[in-house]
Amino acid sequence: MAKQGEDKSLQKLAGLRRQHKELINLMPLQTGGILTKAAREALVEFGDGYSVCDFCQGSLCDVANPPIRDFVHELLPQFLGCEVATVTHGAREAKFMVMHSLAEAGDSILVDANRHYTTVVAADRVGLNVIEVPHSGYPEFKVDINQYAPLIRKHTPKLILLTYPDGNYGNLPDARRLGEIAQEYDIPCILNGAYSVGRMPVSMEEIGADFIIGSGHKSMASAGPVGVLGMRKKWEEGVLRKSPTYSKKDIELLGCSVRGVPLMTLMASFACVKERVQHWDEQVSKAQWFSAELEKLGFKQLGEQPHKHDLLYFESPALYEISRRVRERGYFLYKELKDRGIWGPQPGMAKSFKLSTFAADRQQLEFVVDSFKAILSKYD
Amino acid sequence: MAKQGEDKSLQKLAGLRRQHKELINLMPLQTGGILTKAAREALVEFGDGYSVCDFCQGSLCDVANPPIRDFVHELLPQFLGCEVATVTHGAREAKFMVMHSLAEAGDSILVDANRHYTTVVAADRVGLNVIEVPHSGYPEFKVDINQYAPLIRKHTPKLILLTYPDGNYGNLPDARRLGEIAQEYDIPCILNGAYSVGRMPVSMEEIGADFIIGSGHKSMASAGPVGVLGMRKKWEEGVLRKSPTYSKKDIELLGCSVRGVPLMTLMASFACVKERVQHWDEQVSKAQWFSAELEKLGFKQLGEQPHKHDLLYFESPALYEISRRVRERGYFLYKELKDRGIWGPQPGMAKSFKLSTFAADRQQLEFVVDSFKAILSKYD
Repeated sequence: MAKQGEDKSLQKLAGLRRQHKELINLMPLQTGGILTKAAREALVEFGDGYSVCDFCQGSLCDVANPPIRDFVHELLPQFLGCEVATVTHGAREAKFMVMHSLAEAGDSILVDANRHYTTVVAADRVGLNVIEVPHSGYPEFKVDINQYAPLIRKHTPKLILLTYPDGNYGNLPDARRLGEIAQEYDIPCILNGAYSVGRMPVSMEEIGADFIIGSGHKSMASAGPVGVLGMRKKWEEGVLRKSPTYSKKDIELLGCSVRGVPLMTLMASFACVKERVQHWDEQVSKAQWFSAELEKLGFKQLGEQPHKHDLLYFESPALYEISRRVRERGYFLYKELKDRGIWGPQPGMAKSFKLSTFAADRQQLEFVVDSFKAILSKYD
Repeated sequence: MAKQGEDKSLQKLAGLRRQHKELINLMPLQTGGILTKAAREALVEFGDGYSVCDFCQGSLCDVANPPIRDFVHELLPQFLGCEVATVTHGAREAKFMVMHSLAEAGDSILVDANRHYTTVVAADRVGLNVIEVPHSGYPEFKVDINQYAPLIRKHTPKLILLTYPDGNYGNLPDARRLGEIAQEYDIPCILNGAYSVGRMPVSMEEIGADFIIGSGHKSMASAGPVGVLGMRKKWEEGVLRKSPTYSKKDIELLGCSVRGVPLMTLMASFACVKERVQHWDEQVSKAQWFSAELEKLGFKQLGEQPHKHDLLYFESPALYEISRRVRERGYFLYKELKDRGIWGPQPGMAKSFKLSTFAADRQQLEFVVDSFKAILSKYD
């Protein structure tokens, strides 16, 4: 890069702005991660480098000031319905550390076909074979939990995993049934709750899983990246094993994991998050109403019907038809929505797209419905 | 926890304040991670969850808006003197991913005896044997790079690593000599520059290493945690190998690593960081002056003399004597310094302590010297 070009690049890095900051946010990755007021304050207070480590005695999860110890060892296990908890860089890192602790290269694991891509990549990193429990295909893509049992008998996996809900369709399979199967076959079971923990009530104990994983930036009103991992006490010695040389240092966390401000935002938002999961029924009825409204416009909601989650996947043939004859192609939808103060579908997508109704209120969603109507009329 | 106690704990999490925020900061973990003004703005702008992923096309390092792609693929390699770079959750995570890619359980690696504890824990996670090149012991703790060669011949390690400088004494061993040895024996060589990259000029190419690792929160004016990893092109295929199922997803990064605001602070501070390393000579003379002043008070600086880095380790027998006869024991020093607006030695330490002069200016350091004098007089 020539000197002048580089100077310009450097300057650009110092004053970056987010285009979507003030818009109505329907973006599935983002609606559960919008910060609370308290988290915004924590950002500024603990923004500098290693600010959380002022009073470290050797382990992040045991820091008393700020009260990380209370959060990780008291509040989090209670919230997750587990016996032991820790914090991670995110849900994928939690999956990897469990897989890396309980399975070895060449072993198999059994997961639902709606699993997030990071489930596969985490397994790749350990060298595991991934067997998938199929979904029902178009249009509902449902996973029948009873199909785990024959595949367990066939493949003797070291671990089983369920994505609850999946990030594509927002389907919520019968997790309790999987807990029973896991106990029947005595196989450790991971519940990937990246889109449930922090949005809806979910308890590892009630489900009967061995591990529960959550994502701070996806569903717990936190800055990215940060995650939570809960487990039964019987797995603590294996997954949270300490270094032979450093008795306070977790091997799988490389000593300390999320040693910075994302953890502080997770903690600062926690009271709000704990409260908001109590209103999940309102979220579900809002999502169902919104889905019905878009279906009236000719869009088709894929995934479970009636829908039980704010993550929604729509096919939109009418928008696709428009995209084929306008200059901006699929980007016209992004542009039209943005012009109306709405941010949601991935830029470029028009044939089908994912939305989340979690962060928007009814009035905003009515405006979104009206905006889709207006866009359809405009290009009619 | 009883309901009332829990409510109190929850409230406490929402309004946390940092006691040391406005003090003169000499804390070795923190002086290189204090945010720039631009980074403070980035914190607020990109604080919400997955804000950096607005325009994701499948890989964090290829995001064009914000310009992560330019930063990772253009600016960072040039800054690190390497051919290929990526971003990680921190220096330890970078060490683990290189070790996990190039060595297998049961293999040996050779590292300096002043290595950070996370070098050992990362090796534990892979199952490696760690062989150490000894230091010279008290008082300088110097590592003689020529001792790598016979240990390479004896143990045939898969990797060699040098901590440059180490975090205890701030010693800067002859890294270029290690680069020559690595090339002579054709062994991949990691330079752990967690306390050099972002503070002082350092170039992987000039040193002749295969990998260079830096820490955003330790030395690049970033929120924690975030790190950088640079390498020769020949290692890209191994360390940055992609998932067989997802061709855009790095296995060792689990798809994307630091997918959030710490990366944005790293980018926002980068122009300042790039500039500040040009003034390293001033930092060294400031550290040397400060060390000489404290030695005049009867403290003894351990590590290399003359010192070449802002990380300083002092023995302070006079303070230790005081700590033995006061109620607060070793905490008296923390308290006395805090009362004077100074934050540095780990609370509880009085017999010996570590400081960094990186963030304080001459005038502030003069005040620190005067404060130590005043504390010694007070308890005389």
